Amino acid sequence: MKVLVINSGSSSLKFTLFDMDDESVLCKGQVERIGLKDPKLTYKRTDGLVQEEILDIQKHAEALRAVCGKLVDEKVGVLKSLQEVDAIGHRVLHGGVTYSDPIVVNQDVKDVIRKYFVLGPLHNPANLGGIEACEEVFPGVPNVAVFDTAFHMSMEPEAYMYAIPREYYDKYQIRKYGFHGTSHKYVYYKSCEFLGLDPKQAKILSCHLGNGSSLCAVKGGKVLDTSMGLTPLMGLVMGTRCGDMDPAVVPFIMQQTGVSAAEMDTILNKKSGLLGVSGISSDMREIEAARDAGDPNAITAYKMFLHRLIHYIGGYYLLLGGADAIVFTGGIGENGITTRKAVVEQLKLFGAELDEEANNTRGKQIVITKPGSKPVCLVTPTNEELMIAMETVSLVK
Amino acid sequence: MKVLVINSGSSSLKFTLFDMDDESVLCKGQVERIGLKDPKLTYKRTDGLVQEEILDIQKHAEALRAVCGKLVDEKVGVLKSLQEVDAIGHRVLHGGVTYSDPIVVNQDVKDVIRKYFVLGPLHNPANLGGIEACEEVFPGVPNVAVFDTAFHMSMEPEAYMYAIPREYYDKYQIRKYGFHGTSHKYVYYKSCEFLGLDPKQAKILSCHLGNGSSLCAVKGGKVLDTSMGLTPLMGLVMGTRCGDMDPAVVPFIMQQTGVSAAEMDTILNKKSGLLGVSGISSDMREIEAARDAGDPNAITAYKMFLHRLIHYIGGYYLLLGGADAIVFTGGIGENGITTRKAVVEQLKLFGAELDEEANNTRGKQIVITKPGSKPVCLVTPTNEELMIAMETVSLVK
Repeated sequence: MKVLVINSGSSSLKFTLFDMDDESVLCKGQVERIGLKDPKLTYKRTDGLVQEEILDIQKHAEALRAVCGKLVDEKVGVLKSLQEVDAIGHRVLHGGVTYSDPIVVNQDVKDVIRKYFVLGPLHNPANLGGIEACEEVFPGVPNVAVFDTAFHMSMEPEAYMYAIPREYYDKYQIRKYGFHGTSHKYVYYKSCEFLGLDPKQAKILSCHLGNGSSLCAVKGGKVLDTSMGLTPLMGLVMGTRCGDMDPAVVPFIMQQTGVSAAEMDTILNKKSGLLGVSGISSDMREIEAARDAGDPNAITAYKMFLHRLIHYIGGYYLLLGGADAIVFTGGIGENGITTRKAVVEQLKLFGAELDEEANNTRGKQIVITKPGSKPVCLVTPTNEELMIAMETVSLVK
Repeated sequence: MKVLVINSGSSSLKFTLFDMDDESVLCKGQVERIGLKDPKLTYKRTDGLVQEEILDIQKHAEALRAVCGKLVDEKVGVLKSLQEVDAIGHRVLHGGVTYSDPIVVNQDVKDVIRKYFVLGPLHNPANLGGIEACEEVFPGVPNVAVFDTAFHMSMEPEAYMYAIPREYYDKYQIRKYGFHGTSHKYVYYKSCEFLGLDPKQAKILSCHLGNGSSLCAVKGGKVLDTSMGLTPLMGLVMGTRCGDMDPAVVPFIMQQTGVSAAEMDTILNKKSGLLGVSGISSDMREIEAARDAGDPNAITAYKMFLHRLIHYIGGYYLLLGGADAIVFTGGIGENGITTRKAVVEQLKLFGAELDEEANNTRGKQIVITKPGSKPVCLVTPTNEELMIAMETVSLVK
């Protein structure tokens, strides 16, 4: 069964084509700068072939047609016909309170995605645009919406409610949703499988650390808590997002500086986090380099990242009543050797013991604590595209 | 040495007169509704005498004169002359980044308190008003300012910085300050003394739980982290304050409902927390009663309070690298038997074992875990007025 996975942004369309008989990737790539200057198509085959082209692409449907042209191209294509595509899986940011599982797209589903434009103003319109482009280009092929919020819908009210007047929940659905749900779900089940844990019983703390970062405490497949909130702004210190902060800071800055609510949104989402504190970069590799070179702002930014991370891990560990495993994933989780080391050394308190040699690896699934360590700490590389393809197969089969 | 302690609010003035030779209270009371309808003076002597009077009081200096009248009253007074008052200690909310210790008030100190009106817009003007009233009524008697933020100034940048552009710290001193500092300091030293711990080494997690609530992780007398922020809005679920929340909720509500920044401030400080979620009360005793009667909103409000509290305790426990003791104080901390029980039962994970009988007490210093429990959990009633008097003595002696 061949599944196309689409992640559609406001001016981009990323794609991965899977052969789900063996979960292999046939090809992947993206179209960037749709409707902007010099739109670029990148097409990569698993055998290493890479093509890049500048094309005049104004709309997502045009981008998708250009991608399809590559898929069935006589020279570089991987399909004989587009009819080989059995189903399409879409990453959709926000399913609001409606969807706690992936779903085959119909008019009702599209209406709900549209209803939640207000909660995902940048992503949901683009995600819907991707779905509609696929309906046009692949008539009759089922589209599946896989929501970034869905996995977290198993949270209880004590975790997802904010302590504000109840009417804001009732009227506007203001609550914690959490994001990275597809990643946390994938990592949970892959880690259970790897460690031989029963996913109906396991207690796992999943740390998705990348440019955006979130933690998720999972017990028996059910989310106990997660660190992102109504939006992906809350929680850890991220590349450019502030994470947790006294909510009173927002009106305080607005009053002191005269910036608007919309400008505040940009400042807190795009100019804060590691970038805002260090003044150097949003990229952890550059922060680490500057820290090692003695830059005081980079040192503070890194220490803040770690302090907040350890706070959350300790908090979720106690809420979970202990964890079988603490899993690192995402760019920093999979490659951040010094970050993992610092965290596991702090976890010595609970009985964890770092395996320095195992920790000295990047990007592969591996246990990084010594035998008998409690909790077990490990790396499980995430694969949201594969998870979306798996969810798609399970729905259309 | 006799010390008068003053806690001056926008329309109130609370006082306690100590004989610091034996730390005994000679009398205490308050003037409420200063400048409003029917200002009321309440005067209580330690022997049980209580007097209440409605008086025409328009200013803090008038309120203080009325109090002084009682102190030296032929029938109910406790002093022969006002000259017996050796020093006056003042609770001051915000010392900003300037004061990490109490200080004898001079013009510079008053200027700094005024400078930080912007960070404590309700309290600092009232606190300064109380100081100026004392200067008028007690000429020549030293006034000492004891700041609610001072104890927390020992935090490191990774704990007090927010992950926003650095200019907001440099230009506007936007950072975590923390509050309840006088209480956390008192509780730390009193708990060390009670348990025979060396205050230069001890690791204690102080839980001040009342209408306002905050946690403070202290190591060797130095604050590692605390849950309140730039303002007392952040952290735990409180009586009427929301505590932690995605900062993006603030502009979201403003956009959705059209409320102003000033109205948001009122909503998040006065209409949120237990009150906002339950729709019943801000008082934990009433929430517990409604919860026990099966009210679903009270159940959610209580569970949220507990969930957030356990999250913070776990987080600070790991940041501290384990704690010698976890201390409960404040109205809920000293009297909340079911809350303490729920927390200690969760702490079983780390080796704590509840002593049900000991826990079944209210308002006295007592260990509530069984011998050998790790961490030790205890109740240490707070006494901010006594701490202010102690700080005052140590400065003017």
